Amino acid sequence: MKQSEYNMSILIKDAWILTQDKKRKQIHGNIYIEDTTITQISEKPVTIEADFKIKGDRKLVLPGLINMHTHIPMTLLRGYGDDMVLNQWLEERIWPVEAKLNPRYISCGTKLGLLEMISSGTTMFLDMYFFEDTIGVETEKAGLRGYLGSGILDYGTPEYPFSKIFSEFEHFIERWKDHELVKPVVAPHGTYTCNPETLRRAGELAEKYNLLLHIHCSETRDEVYTVQDRYGRRPVEILKETGLLNKNMILAHCGWITKGEILDIKKYNASVVHCPVSNMKIATGGVAPLPELLSADVIVTLGTDGAASNNALDMFETMKFAALLQKQHRWDPQVLPAQTVFDLATINSAKALHMDHMLGSIEEGKKADIIIVDLDKPRLTPCHDPISHLVYAANGSDVYATIVNGKILMLNGEFYTLNKEDIIEDAIECAEDLTTSS
Amino acid sequence: MKQSEYNMSILIKDAWILTQDKKRKQIHGNIYIEDTTITQISEKPVTIEADFKIKGDRKLVLPGLINMHTHIPMTLLRGYGDDMVLNQWLEERIWPVEAKLNPRYISCGTKLGLLEMISSGTTMFLDMYFFEDTIGVETEKAGLRGYLGSGILDYGTPEYPFSKIFSEFEHFIERWKDHELVKPVVAPHGTYTCNPETLRRAGELAEKYNLLLHIHCSETRDEVYTVQDRYGRRPVEILKETGLLNKNMILAHCGWITKGEILDIKKYNASVVHCPVSNMKIATGGVAPLPELLSADVIVTLGTDGAASNNALDMFETMKFAALLQKQHRWDPQVLPAQTVFDLATINSAKALHMDHMLGSIEEGKKADIIIVDLDKPRLTPCHDPISHLVYAANGSDVYATIVNGKILMLNGEFYTLNKEDIIEDAIECAEDLTTSS
Repeated sequence: MKQSEYNMSILIKDAWILTQDKKRKQIHGNIYIEDTTITQISEKPVTIEADFKIKGDRKLVLPGLINMHTHIPMTLLRGYGDDMVLNQWLEERIWPVEAKLNPRYISCGTKLGLLEMISSGTTMFLDMYFFEDTIGVETEKAGLRGYLGSGILDYGTPEYPFSKIFSEFEHFIERWKDHELVKPVVAPHGTYTCNPETLRRAGELAEKYNLLLHIHCSETRDEVYTVQDRYGRRPVEILKETGLLNKNMILAHCGWITKGEILDIKKYNASVVHCPVSNMKIATGGVAPLPELLSADVIVTLGTDGAASNNALDMFETMKFAALLQKQHRWDPQVLPAQTVFDLATINSAKALHMDHMLGSIEEGKKADIIIVDLDKPRLTPCHDPISHLVYAANGSDVYATIVNGKILMLNGEFYTLNKEDIIEDAIECAEDLTTSS
Repeated sequence: MKQSEYNMSILIKDAWILTQDKKRKQIHGNIYIEDTTITQISEKPVTIEADFKIKGDRKLVLPGLINMHTHIPMTLLRGYGDDMVLNQWLEERIWPVEAKLNPRYISCGTKLGLLEMISSGTTMFLDMYFFEDTIGVETEKAGLRGYLGSGILDYGTPEYPFSKIFSEFEHFIERWKDHELVKPVVAPHGTYTCNPETLRRAGELAEKYNLLLHIHCSETRDEVYTVQDRYGRRPVEILKETGLLNKNMILAHCGWITKGEILDIKKYNASVVHCPVSNMKIATGGVAPLPELLSADVIVTLGTDGAASNNALDMFETMKFAALLQKQHRWDPQVLPAQTVFDLATINSAKALHMDHMLGSIEEGKKADIIIVDLDKPRLTPCHDPISHLVYAANGSDVYATIVNGKILMLNGEFYTLNKEDIIEDAIECAEDLTTSS
């Protein structure tokens, strides 16, 4: 029987559970899920019957990974232009294709990205792109949690001219604000692509609906120079002055921020998404100062960025890159240890999204966003330390099951809400159309 | 029928073949393998009958990846001590365990490493460790190609006191020098662990039998300082003076070499193995100057290093880390493009091993060391550029088949020469014994 509907119960038996609760407790035991919620975690055998059982031997059970920065439809542009200078890549490859985007391509690329995220253990993501309404429809159908930011740019988007962005975005908010899995986010693109007046309007909109804000911030040195030239201020200072630096703001990248900017980020309680793979690949992404951000008690999280600059959406890989980049850059193997990295990808992300009362750890009463990693593989043998394995040895292909809101989305390579074959076939066709048609 | 014996023919049909020949030609067609050799590559349908057929639709066929630096039995210590300062890690974790090594543990760890390499598309490896005789036996049984360097250290090894190393090593050479898959290599550990006299003797031994040499070189700054303090010279200068810097020498790491050392490496035609994951993880590995080495026309290759400092043996992952580390370090996205990285892991490695007339590319007359990557996965969809996918999107889990010397070692998750279940079970037990017994 497939557990593909809500209102069912699942029992995960005899597993090694990495709870990520406050004590980072590890339990060898059982998890009982009723409907959408974790109702029981127990070291003793659970005798209660469940509609669906998953054997946990030689498996790690952990909170679903949360990808805090991506542009999901860009999966269609995976590998379409690598090893290029940023501006050339944008001007010759990305922007010409983005000008041709429509809901069909967006739907196709989104489904491909959802498939990849589900298969590699991501249960929630924060997106910033265009046609987010279409992305919302597909995300809800697939059963993933999506925080969706419809991009705001002074020069308009492939979807709307600037004059329509705010009114259309307000419709988008109204449509999605009361949904359970999909939530709207206000996403001004950056301080170099949105002027202070646009930023202020975005901030007001977020305040009106009490929504999260998401923006690119200090991703490249060029961006910082451009903004300084134009305004005499650095990106974080502009956000502060326009009222966007607050507890709802999630800053992507921060590769070139100063100590002063770190203090401001903390003072105003904004959060940061580090995207090490993309930052390294575009080569001008710097190295976000994670030790200083964490010392200042800023909430730091991890993201893959879009597949066009990564080129995967694998949060396991991103954890390894995050840990190793900091160690290499600081000449210090103790910087960003495995447990800290695992925190960034789980409980910290839930905190940044103000959802840590419901998500980010495996605790009774919390929502059942859970993934299971299969240890029965050469690369995960032996297992001296499960946290080390998740960060340094595993990859997304080691995920055995992905459960979101109490619903199984993938189990042992089988997808319950998406048709893998159709999605792959469609993506090949769309990618061909997008990159060859005039 | 399992193609698990030699003297059989294999036909790989209708595949996308990345030959890695001199023109880096890509062919959509067929490969015919007879016994150990690629006898036909053809774009036209092959009508000749084969004992075994592999369908190539939606698959990439490429030369097997070559892991040029590892310590294979250390798979048993995967994740046994991360995020530690190098000396503390060695003194508290690695050395106490290595003192307990015996052929049983070595055999167990080797089989685990072989299983991991076969599953992730590595067809040949260069090893440096102890008990290499045992490693040779297991490697030959598994059907992989292994260049095995029995470590030489002034203070002896877990296998032999120093007084016996050279005589025992000569026996090792005699036993293996005429085997097809396994070859002996002379492996003085490093210029900080072997004095000039030991180095000279190692060089003479290599010369006597015309063997390859393998050594750790400038892996950490500490190593360079130690050597400079002791001898007033840098590691490469010492190798030059002791006669070890020649076309048979393969230098592991080179994270802290100078421009002068690069010129010497080129002048004497030695090769370099870059191990980005391990270098980043131990944090003091620097960033090997790949652009300068490649400009100087030095043969550069890639390795994982041991699983204790990686923590995987995944050459796909290593390719991605190699590319991104250089880009990040040089602030230049064009440094080390995908094709170059793919070369390092295939044809360049064959050159460093003086085997490029037989290995490293898919060409008629060459040995059939071939791997097949399954593109029918979300993370490898769409495929704008197969080389980009291999370096930036794939991981070892995407390998569908591994063929060495015309023999299928793994096909679609099934291992033909190794028993996965037994090896994993045994490795768990050995690792437990090794790390807990007094």
